[in-house]
Amino acid sequence: MGKISLKDISTRAPKNFDKAETKAKTEKILAEMDELQNLLYAESKHSILVVIQGMDASGKDGVIRNVFGKLNPQGVMVKSFKAPTPEELSHDFLWRVHQAAPAKGVIQLFNRSHYEDILITRVHKWCDDVTAKKRMKAINDFESLLTNHNNTHILKFYLHVSPEEQKGRLEERIHDSTKQWKYNEKDFEEAKLWDQYMAVYDDCFEKCNDVPWTIVPSDQNWYKEYIIAKQVRDTLKSLKMQFPGLKK
Amino acid sequence: MGKISLKDISTRAPKNFDKAETKAKTEKILAEMDELQNLLYAESKHSILVVIQGMDASGKDGVIRNVFGKLNPQGVMVKSFKAPTPEELSHDFLWRVHQAAPAKGVIQLFNRSHYEDILITRVHKWCDDVTAKKRMKAINDFESLLTNHNNTHILKFYLHVSPEEQKGRLEERIHDSTKQWKYNEKDFEEAKLWDQYMAVYDDCFEKCNDVPWTIVPSDQNWYKEYIIAKQVRDTLKSLKMQFPGLKK
Repeated sequence: MGKISLKDISTRAPKNFDKAETKAKTEKILAEMDELQNLLYAESKHSILVVIQGMDASGKDGVIRNVFGKLNPQGVMVKSFKAPTPEELSHDFLWRVHQAAPAKGVIQLFNRSHYEDILITRVHKWCDDVTAKKRMKAINDFESLLTNHNNTHILKFYLHVSPEEQKGRLEERIHDSTKQWKYNEKDFEEAKLWDQYMAVYDDCFEKCNDVPWTIVPSDQNWYKEYIIAKQVRDTLKSLKMQFPGLKK
Repeated sequence: MGKISLKDISTRAPKNFDKAETKAKTEKILAEMDELQNLLYAESKHSILVVIQGMDASGKDGVIRNVFGKLNPQGVMVKSFKAPTPEELSHDFLWRVHQAAPAKGVIQLFNRSHYEDILITRVHKWCDDVTAKKRMKAINDFESLLTNHNNTHILKFYLHVSPEEQKGRLEERIHDSTKQWKYNEKDFEEAKLWDQYMAVYDDCFEKCNDVPWTIVPSDQNWYKEYIIAKQVRDTLKSLKMQFPGLKK
């Protein structure tokens, strides 16, 4: 996408979007997605990989629950990437990621992803710029492999929230008993590194855009969910899938 | 290596090599390899991937047994690549290969490999030339990932036998009761495709040589084992490994 700067991009829905109307549209899209996923699974020629990235409390879990939660779980897989284990660290950084790549017929969700290896790691200087550059090349090669050798359609979403919105959500986790399980005091420390995170994200969007990123204004969940559902639906629709006939 | 033509390369040891002398040298090298492997395992900074390719009866199993058989099995893994399973076929062709890539500290042997996806598949026209070209690009990217992101030193050996030698060995499998378990009548059918195999191998050596291939004259097992052992030993030696001190 060339040079982009997250700080110049709005985190809110455009003015002409009405919440109730948009929610109704999303409902219709989700119903279409359900049909299309069934077809994806039946045909088993393509797969979908949805990469979900974003700062803490940007609403990644919400996307998984609200956009993909009603699909047939037989064809939807979720992989959450945490800090690598010692076994994972004894391999290249894409080893664990490749294992989680989708089989034909499947929608695979990545809650965080291989991109953490050039994001949190850069912010904390666990990975220097030279290594980061090599990793970005390897990521592009890897995404090309999945795209060209397994008909995997990769959708990459960055959930774009403002620092103020993040602060509000992190504080809510202290006071709301249904959200306290998500509370981690370290998140407030990470939040102080906001500008550093934005800088490495900007660099990532510039250099790892062979498969394009979508920046999703995410301060309002209803808009975020609409944008993502719409893009997944449009991608599935573009595949011109057909139910296979009887096997001969 | 530029254009090469297997038919112009000898399958036999050079004249000045004496069998008994060479075997004695190999024994010494194997003892060194044993020490160096222990160090590789202890240091756990590098890994070795040995790709063994060759026609039927070219002696791949013999290399594994005679060159690597005496090493500590805790640090030597063998993966034999057979026809892909339905699950493997539902992923890109490197998915199963990446899973078998070596952890740091390990020597991983591939008995056949990802190269079958541009060899047997091309000979039988399961894979067209356009796909083969894309796969060769993906293979180069993949080998670069292992090399640059996990200190994996890849050694690729083609066991070069003559069609006459192969015929003799395949026939031996009929008459020698200790070799009958290897007999497969289909091997004789494959052998008829010799020239087609040589053509796709030649193409592979030209286009997938970022990590260089070694063509090993393999009509005589003693010479084949010497060449491979020597190269593995030299590679291990070049790593300048050291035993880690006490953890602090």
